Amino acid sequence: MEFSAKQIAQFIQGRVEGDENATVNTFAKIEDGKPGAISFLANPKYTHYLYNTESTIVLVDESIELEKPATATLIRVKNARDCVAKLLQLYESMKPKKQGIDSLAFISPKAKVGKDVYIGAFAYIGDGAVIGDGCQIYPHATIMDNVVLGTGCIIYPNVSIYHECRLGNNVTIHSGSVIGADGFGFAPNEQTGQYDKIPQIGIVTIEDDVEIGANTCIDRSTMGSTYVRKGVKLDNLVQIAHNTDIGSNTVMSAQVGIAGSTKVGQWCMFGGQVGIAGHITIGDKVFLGAQSGVPGSLKSNQTLIGTPPMESRPYFKSQAIFRRLPELYKQINDLQKEVEELKKGK
Amino acid sequence: MEFSAKQIAQFIQGRVEGDENATVNTFAKIEDGKPGAISFLANPKYTHYLYNTESTIVLVDESIELEKPATATLIRVKNARDCVAKLLQLYESMKPKKQGIDSLAFISPKAKVGKDVYIGAFAYIGDGAVIGDGCQIYPHATIMDNVVLGTGCIIYPNVSIYHECRLGNNVTIHSGSVIGADGFGFAPNEQTGQYDKIPQIGIVTIEDDVEIGANTCIDRSTMGSTYVRKGVKLDNLVQIAHNTDIGSNTVMSAQVGIAGSTKVGQWCMFGGQVGIAGHITIGDKVFLGAQSGVPGSLKSNQTLIGTPPMESRPYFKSQAIFRRLPELYKQINDLQKEVEELKKGK
Amino acid sequence: MEFSAKQIAQFIQGRVEGDENATVNTFAKIEDGKPGAISFLANPKYTHYLYNTESTIVLVDESIELEKPATATLIRVKNARDCVAKLLQLYESMKPKKQGIDSLAFISPKAKVGKDVYIGAFAYIGDGAVIGDGCQIYPHATIMDNVVLGTGCIIYPNVSIYHECRLGNNVTIHSGSVIGADGFGFAPNEQTGQYDKIPQIGIVTIEDDVEIGANTCIDRSTMGSTYVRKGVKLDNLVQIAHNTDIGSNTVMSAQVGIAGSTKVGQWCMFGGQVGIAGHITIGDKVFLGAQSGVPGSLKSNQTLIGTPPMESRPYFKSQAIFRRLPELYKQINDLQKEVEELKKGK
Repeated sequence: MEFSAKQIAQFIQGRVEGDENATVNTFAKIEDGKPGAISFLANPKYTHYLYNTESTIVLVDESIELEKPATATLIRVKNARDCVAKLLQLYESMKPKKQGIDSLAFISPKAKVGKDVYIGAFAYIGDGAVIGDGCQIYPHATIMDNVVLGTGCIIYPNVSIYHECRLGNNVTIHSGSVIGADGFGFAPNEQTGQYDKIPQIGIVTIEDDVEIGANTCIDRSTMGSTYVRKGVKLDNLVQIAHNTDIGSNTVMSAQVGIAGSTKVGQWCMFGGQVGIAGHITIGDKVFLGAQSGVPGSLKSNQTLIGTPPMESRPYFKSQAIFRRLPELYKQINDLQKEVEELKKGK
Repeated sequence: MEFSAKQIAQFIQGRVEGDENATVNTFAKIEDGKPGAISFLANPKYTHYLYNTESTIVLVDESIELEKPATATLIRVKNARDCVAKLLQLYESMKPKKQGIDSLAFISPKAKVGKDVYIGAFAYIGDGAVIGDGCQIYPHATIMDNVVLGTGCIIYPNVSIYHECRLGNNVTIHSGSVIGADGFGFAPNEQTGQYDKIPQIGIVTIEDDVEIGANTCIDRSTMGSTYVRKGVKLDNLVQIAHNTDIGSNTVMSAQVGIAGSTKVGQWCMFGGQVGIAGHITIGDKVFLGAQSGVPGSLKSNQTLIGTPPMESRPYFKSQAIFRRLPELYKQINDLQKEVEELKKGK
Repeated sequence: MEFSAKQIAQFIQGRVEGDENATVNTFAKIEDGKPGAISFLANPKYTHYLYNTESTIVLVDESIELEKPATATLIRVKNARDCVAKLLQLYESMKPKKQGIDSLAFISPKAKVGKDVYIGAFAYIGDGAVIGDGCQIYPHATIMDNVVLGTGCIIYPNVSIYHECRLGNNVTIHSGSVIGADGFGFAPNEQTGQYDKIPQIGIVTIEDDVEIGANTCIDRSTMGSTYVRKGVKLDNLVQIAHNTDIGSNTVMSAQVGIAGSTKVGQWCMFGGQVGIAGHITIGDKVFLGAQSGVPGSLKSNQTLIGTPPMESRPYFKSQAIFRRLPELYKQINDLQKEVEELKKGK
């Protein structure tokens, strides 16, 4: 797959500065440039790399001004970052896709498998499972009984999807993630002096266009369903407890934890390691800074950070004063003494 | 499986209000009620759902008073939540269990497998392993050499149990969890300028009635054993480091981390994302709020939160004042000035 | 494998006190001692165990003074802890290693497999993969297309290594870890009102002598490579995001998260649950206390804790005053009143 500067410029509606016949066949970061690669420059901070990158072509934001000529052929575009994403998508779409059903896969005779699928060696498809057209099921994925996958899903190695769970179309799940394990429900039994398990007979429903990272867990509900709505993106090692409902297009970074029965709105963004309590409601477009801890419900359209979360500016002020608490403490005690003196002197 | 209100009322010792011949075959949350389902109402906050739920039967706490008649048949009980748990257990116990050994399983000829087991396709049972009666080993579970499982254990897909580890009876381990990986032990070697690995030749011992969530890790000890005692319940993505001892009936929510050589007492409860330092002792019945960080040992019978953990009431007070630190800071500086003025004026 | 006190003393250059013909065949913690075992005593706090341990031999630091005779044979050494590590390494090295390629493994005819390897049942080796001499690939490990493993790597069950990733020599990866899943990259698309995926066409490069715990995730880069440098040790459930570069001999405890494009120096040590923001630089020898949150770059040679991280001593002071904020608050308000009084009285 080789493309000329001219072809690329046409595809992304850019303007060539330099040799329009220069060709590339791969991508490289501008600081790791090499001949035959295309790089991009969107952050003016990195402009100095432009003058000696070895990349053959560089996508550059219209707005970036050069102090001296660049050796590479440039393609000027409105938004270099967006254009790279488009080119990467094109590149990815041209890669050959895995296909066919490996003879070492286990597919229950009671399962229903669509057209144009890939099912790798040691993949396991249980009784009554439905695999939609164009799905790719990698080695060691376990699709348990009666699971339903829509079309175009990608299930990477060592993923487990427990019985009865339902995925929409174009759902991608990375290695090691577990969909539909039992929610964490136990009740102390005074007679036996132990915990009794509360069976979790519900399921997990994952709607269209969801992508789930590696080693993430989404638990099945006690009854009914845990929901992950259309377009949600979850990073690695995220915990979604039972009976939750995650609103569409919400994005969670790695190691976030959402406790049980909580409802999260649409278009939220949570930084890494955020923790959210159970049985609460988070509105739409709530942005939470990394490591925030959320004990209670939050209204829509807020950008917050901390535990409990507050607006960023006062949070950072409070944090700065926290660092100075020892001096503040001394200052107060000194003041106290001075006031005592003044009172005596009165 | 269909049951009448009369049958259910007898089973849970309740009293029918309405049609005792009404039948149900499934469960539903009261807000998602549907014909043929049984729901429950324990929280008076949800009483309004009772008047228009489509569920056929609703379990209701004796104490809840109705303002108008409900359409569903009611079964009055002392504790609706407990009764639902009992009904769910009944329902679960009546489901057909997987059984038999799949021809695609790998079972070492040197392993010993009990009666009435289920061993799925691609399950792996190593040399010298012992699988007790009634165990269920799902596809892609890996039981390494000389592992011993008691009776009635359930090992879900993609679980790894490393060599020599020992599980008691009725232990359940959800997908992706790893039992007995090497504890994290390295020593800097001044001669080589690298870390040397300290081999971890111990094991993990998991006692009876333990349930472990998905993608949780319990490391083998350096020597001797890491212990998870009878009745412990661990949620997903929990980290239990080497040489620890987790007391019986202790419960940990998702993403908790316990560092090495720490001893945790019985009947503790830790909220999500709690972190506990190594080489310390936590007493019995210690309840820790979510995200607490515990640097030192804690005595029994305490409910704490924060880093380091303190009692909830002062913690929340301190937290509230943290939010007001900027005003406090200004107040102190203003006071300082006033005192300066007073001193001058003296 | 049985060794006498004399043989052991020679190996670790120690001095026998007691029966030099006493033999042992296993290890035990001094508090769990048993006949035939060797224990060690490095921490004077545990000296009392020495007088009634049942272990046959105990390694003891030269510096520890006894108040009464010990029943066990002692071997006096300069550093008992180091000597135990050496003995454990010897013990481990004498254990028989798994070898041979199981007939139930899947090895692509296009893969290249070295000498003296172990490849277990249900291991999967994709097209174009290269497995170096002496590697051990356990059951259910998935090595995808074109992955390259150096010599002497150990890949435990249920590990997934995505296509094209490269491992050096003597790399150990514990169960459930995922190397090379897609970095978390999505861009909002205003036209479709959804997120577009940014394909991640880079790889992960893991250099020699790296050990990675269980259920840890290291994402592939958008382009180029995510790097884990020589001698790095990562504990369980760690998140390493795309485009990061982790410097050699850096050690991270469980549940640490490093966000995207961050560069971490050499010989750093991060406590459990630390979170580090994206696009920043951490210098060499930065030691971070557990649960620290790092929003910005940090220079080399610092020991820090907290969010944002500060030096330990002032951090613990500020933390102590945080606990007393309610009294401080009252004190300030009382002062305020007193100053008002003084002003009136003037």
